[in-house]
Amino acid sequence: MAPPHFKRLVIYGVGLLGGSLGMAVRRRGMAECVVGLGRSAERLEQARRLGAIDTGAMRPEEALAGADALILAVPPRQIRESLAGLAPLLEPGTFVTDVGSVKARIVAHAEEILAPEVRFIGSHPMAGSEKTGAEHGRTDFFEGTACILTPTPRTHPEALELAQAFWQRLGGRMVITSPERHDTLLAGISHLPHLVAAALMQMLGRSLASPEEISSIAGGGLRDTTRIAASDPAIWEQIFSENAPALLETLDAYLAVLQEWRAALAQSSPDSRKLAELYSEGRNIRQNVQFPTPPGTE
Amino acid sequence: MAPPHFKRLVIYGVGLLGGSLGMAVRRRGMAECVVGLGRSAERLEQARRLGAIDTGAMRPEEALAGADALILAVPPRQIRESLAGLAPLLEPGTFVTDVGSVKARIVAHAEEILAPEVRFIGSHPMAGSEKTGAEHGRTDFFEGTACILTPTPRTHPEALELAQAFWQRLGGRMVITSPERHDTLLAGISHLPHLVAAALMQMLGRSLASPEEISSIAGGGLRDTTRIAASDPAIWEQIFSENAPALLETLDAYLAVLQEWRAALAQSSPDSRKLAELYSEGRNIRQNVQFPTPPGTE
Repeated sequence: MAPPHFKRLVIYGVGLLGGSLGMAVRRRGMAECVVGLGRSAERLEQARRLGAIDTGAMRPEEALAGADALILAVPPRQIRESLAGLAPLLEPGTFVTDVGSVKARIVAHAEEILAPEVRFIGSHPMAGSEKTGAEHGRTDFFEGTACILTPTPRTHPEALELAQAFWQRLGGRMVITSPERHDTLLAGISHLPHLVAAALMQMLGRSLASPEEISSIAGGGLRDTTRIAASDPAIWEQIFSENAPALLETLDAYLAVLQEWRAALAQSSPDSRKLAELYSEGRNIRQNVQFPTPPGTE
Repeated sequence: MAPPHFKRLVIYGVGLLGGSLGMAVRRRGMAECVVGLGRSAERLEQARRLGAIDTGAMRPEEALAGADALILAVPPRQIRESLAGLAPLLEPGTFVTDVGSVKARIVAHAEEILAPEVRFIGSHPMAGSEKTGAEHGRTDFFEGTACILTPTPRTHPEALELAQAFWQRLGGRMVITSPERHDTLLAGISHLPHLVAAALMQMLGRSLASPEEISSIAGGGLRDTTRIAASDPAIWEQIFSENAPALLETLDAYLAVLQEWRAALAQSSPDSRKLAELYSEGRNIRQNVQFPTPPGTE
């Protein structure tokens, strides 16, 4: 399928993801006009100067007049809560997708609220960074990163086709799964690691040492293990909240593993064989996983 | 103080650390002869070919005849268990140190077993990697990395001076603390992160998905958070066992933080404010910590 070409593509949210998306779409000539929709005139103007959008708008009516594509690139709760206001402004046939890191609640709400003539499908490009803002945006932000599409029985085939062609043109590797499976997988592969990294830093700061003392001896291990603890709390609070049931389940599975470690350590003479076994188990699983070396590193 | 120059420096263990140490010492001309002591003729020969040692020996008597320096670079339990056999072979005045990641047990045992005329002090250069073997060794392995020295009231001042001059010449940043404080700090800053990374991979493999499915969507976040789960289980089992009391304490502090997260997620309507607060706490602590970008990245 030929890559889609839109007349007027609206990106709601011009942060790191929305900004990179605008840069990538404009660079590849995938739309005649890329419009940024946002709440801050200043940030829209910055996005325009950075080449992320052709023009900015603060009123949805203005942004969406004549639009044939809308990408929702704000944090997940905002995506969900914005749908009711945006729905009446969408022409039949408009391609609508989002980049939210949690899918089931967004997709269910979108299917309830958007007219059936709108071509909606949920997307989640696995690009991101602990950095924020369009100033860190890059035209190659999506190259080589997994892009998960979450069709349901109610998804129009054209929406799926458009989304595949769209993200493929930006360099994404397509993964297709249900919104529910997406949320379970992401809880384990992305959301729990963010929680774990934050909890590690919390424990160190609360119980162990001052930042200065930690700095004096910390090496690359702690640095890498906690890199994603530096991500934006305003976004991650929303991801955790929106995916709370799946995240809770995965946290409980993780706590069960930690209790096994605890039992092996707590014996009067530590169970060396069990400790080696537990560590090897994790190592073996990791060695069977292939990791990308992507430009975006969420 | 002038950098020390040894006549015959023996390195027990020619893996990644011992190998790098030999390369670094030889490159800087810090010893007339660098002798590798090990149990495998093949690995000693490999170390010699890599330029890590001048010569290898499998019998301690042979290696230590005429030696004025001994660096113990095997995993921590082996360091401790080797002391009794090595002690009678050491001339008075010999500089002895180790590179073990756990200090209190090793130092206590060394002070009990080594003659007071031997110049012993515990060291822990924070260099390392998930890779193993002298073939990954580098002459700049210790440059810019923290090197922790753990003197006690029984440490001879000359041992401390020699160790400082030795590691500084290799590029290390000196940190001086007690063996006990070292073990508490390391439990939190290094040992728990290794345990956490392993437990994450275990949970994913046990409860969530096949390595193939994880590979299809994993990004840089999981990659970095679990990088150190790829480390050598034979070494890490020993570190965990030798430092079990401090590691257990730090694991319990970590579990307490995770229980706070759990409580915020488990409410029928997740406590967004609390989730944001917890995540921000971790982020703020991390932002006050300075991380090195070292060649060695334990």
